[in-house]
Amino acid sequence: MGHIITAVYEIAGEDAARRAALVAVEQSHELPTELAPANAVRDSLAHVRAVVEQPGLPALATVDYPADLAGGELGQLLVLLLGNVSLQDGVRLVDLTVPAALAGALRGPRLGVAGVRALVGEPEGALLATALKPVGMTGEQLAALAYDVAAGGLHVVKEDQGLADQPWAPFAERVPRVAEAVRRANDHTGGHSVYLPVVNGGAARFAEQIHFVRRAGAHGVLVMPGIAGFGAVAHAAKLFEGGIVLAHPSFLGGFTASAGHGIAPDVLFGTLLRLAGADASIFPSWGGRFSLTRTQCLAIADAARRPLHDLAPTLPTPGGGMSIDRAPELLEAYGPDTLFLVGGDLRRGDDPRRAAERLVGAVRRG
Amino acid sequence: MGHIITAVYEIAGEDAARRAALVAVEQSHELPTELAPANAVRDSLAHVRAVVEQPGLPALATVDYPADLAGGELGQLLVLLLGNVSLQDGVRLVDLTVPAALAGALRGPRLGVAGVRALVGEPEGALLATALKPVGMTGEQLAALAYDVAAGGLHVVKEDQGLADQPWAPFAERVPRVAEAVRRANDHTGGHSVYLPVVNGGAARFAEQIHFVRRAGAHGVLVMPGIAGFGAVAHAAKLFEGGIVLAHPSFLGGFTASAGHGIAPDVLFGTLLRLAGADASIFPSWGGRFSLTRTQCLAIADAARRPLHDLAPTLPTPGGGMSIDRAPELLEAYGPDTLFLVGGDLRRGDDPRRAAERLVGAVRRG
Repeated sequence: MGHIITAVYEIAGEDAARRAALVAVEQSHELPTELAPANAVRDSLAHVRAVVEQPGLPALATVDYPADLAGGELGQLLVLLLGNVSLQDGVRLVDLTVPAALAGALRGPRLGVAGVRALVGEPEGALLATALKPVGMTGEQLAALAYDVAAGGLHVVKEDQGLADQPWAPFAERVPRVAEAVRRANDHTGGHSVYLPVVNGGAARFAEQIHFVRRAGAHGVLVMPGIAGFGAVAHAAKLFEGGIVLAHPSFLGGFTASAGHGIAPDVLFGTLLRLAGADASIFPSWGGRFSLTRTQCLAIADAARRPLHDLAPTLPTPGGGMSIDRAPELLEAYGPDTLFLVGGDLRRGDDPRRAAERLVGAVRRG
Repeated sequence: MGHIITAVYEIAGEDAARRAALVAVEQSHELPTELAPANAVRDSLAHVRAVVEQPGLPALATVDYPADLAGGELGQLLVLLLGNVSLQDGVRLVDLTVPAALAGALRGPRLGVAGVRALVGEPEGALLATALKPVGMTGEQLAALAYDVAAGGLHVVKEDQGLADQPWAPFAERVPRVAEAVRRANDHTGGHSVYLPVVNGGAARFAEQIHFVRRAGAHGVLVMPGIAGFGAVAHAAKLFEGGIVLAHPSFLGGFTASAGHGIAPDVLFGTLLRLAGADASIFPSWGGRFSLTRTQCLAIADAARRPLHDLAPTLPTPGGGMSIDRAPELLEAYGPDTLFLVGGDLRRGDDPRRAAERLVGAVRRG
């Protein structure tokens, strides 16, 4: 079984066994089997292992893929798990098992939970992050905000995915300025806040932008695998040795927002982004502006952290809904190996630094 | 109005006007407006221009974005059009207008319809493609198939997206072998078939793979923007000057398979991939194994080809369902500026070359 990738799909509607067989063919050969050469039928065709009917629910179909189909590459793993089938309604990827050799080839997080904790100097407690926003603020305004929240004790200062290379705070001017502000805050407080700029200037500029933010004194990057491709996560980790790679879910909702197709959120934001190498993976938590349930969110956190061959765990990073009031509830639910992303609640007063300090206090008490 | 990007969303359910306002804020500032600095509210906040209720259908909400939000970058355009909102159900992007300056910055297809026609030596008639598959065939088998279909007169021999760097036909062995087979077929027939290998080895190897296939004598590449990111399309065009960039829809179905959210297929496979620079864009045609309707498919073809500032048109590339029998119907529907992707129908006999010749004949008569 070490040479098999196993995927479980929910298949809605009639005739699940027949449709599961079609999925296995579509996702491996994409050609009627009677037209394929005998060696390909022997070596590279996927097979349905089981189909379990569930009254009133979609059937669960387990499909075994020869692991060589992925060629040791993340992009090809995605192609075979859901490439063409993503275009068909009523099929949803809900579980995934990969052999140790493939997990080892993909490598997973370079830093993981322990590496991020070491960088931010927080060995045990819950971790806190906020986003620099909105777009339209000047570099000076963003740097002032970064100083305040870093001085207030937040572990991670990340840029909002709305920031890019716009006239109000151009990339080349903004990044060094914010990095300097976070460094200054750390110097004043003795803290270890990290700064993660967003890198989204396109494939041709990706390496150049990563090298730039590293030289500017950032501690890692925010990457959007839905925009830049899942391979951008490992590429960022390779280009920025020792840096944190934080994955943002922008543009990935096509896969999770509708129950009848796509990918279950724990597989997408947990398993797949962990295999991809995300040190931390942002997802929209329940109680905020998005539609994932508490159960789905806790399943993401579990997939990010549970044992998976030799891979380091990914820090689940629930976004939205965190506040001083909710800190005890969310800490209890997610546990301390979590990076909580706090948004507007920090900005409600006139003093983001005091708000950050209050939040840090609430979480420490929690 | 030259500085505005306009997006139209279908918004399902109650209270469309209020939800449209939330989309405008979410997709620009992602922060309650009362918490944003005055300069950001003035410069970078999106606004709802109109909400039209449609009895029994989703409302249509038109949102104006300051064009500077995209920073002249495709990835950031995607972030602002649908980044976070993709995670919310009941919101679907159905139309998009970009100013000339942004279209010019993105550049669109380098070759477009005319450039592909020049390469394949077919000035007017419909164009035909097939895919080398299934994965599991040896390099020798794939090269023999490529020879046959090229000698039979197909204009484009593309690799299936299931091929990668697997043991049965490793990338570095397969690509030169198939390129040589297509060259030999062209020498024998006096034709100009082109060979487009798939490049999916990850971001870190992308440039290396493109340079390799170019040196091996391929005429362009197949790229999967759903896997490699939309920016990979323009990156491929930049790395492979004069080569064809053919976009494959693998993993993009999350956006189109469900009616209630995501992106309308004509915006995704037509407008956005054209802006991204695809010379040809594959989509699953009606009558095949996928779920797009005839109307949706013809809307994709229209978005790919209609006037769009100074951008070259993209070749719509319907996949699935093309056969000798259906050639007249599909030619009539799509018109000649179309690359028809033919699959299993070519493989039903023992002789792919004769099957290709019959199909070419049927299309010429059509």
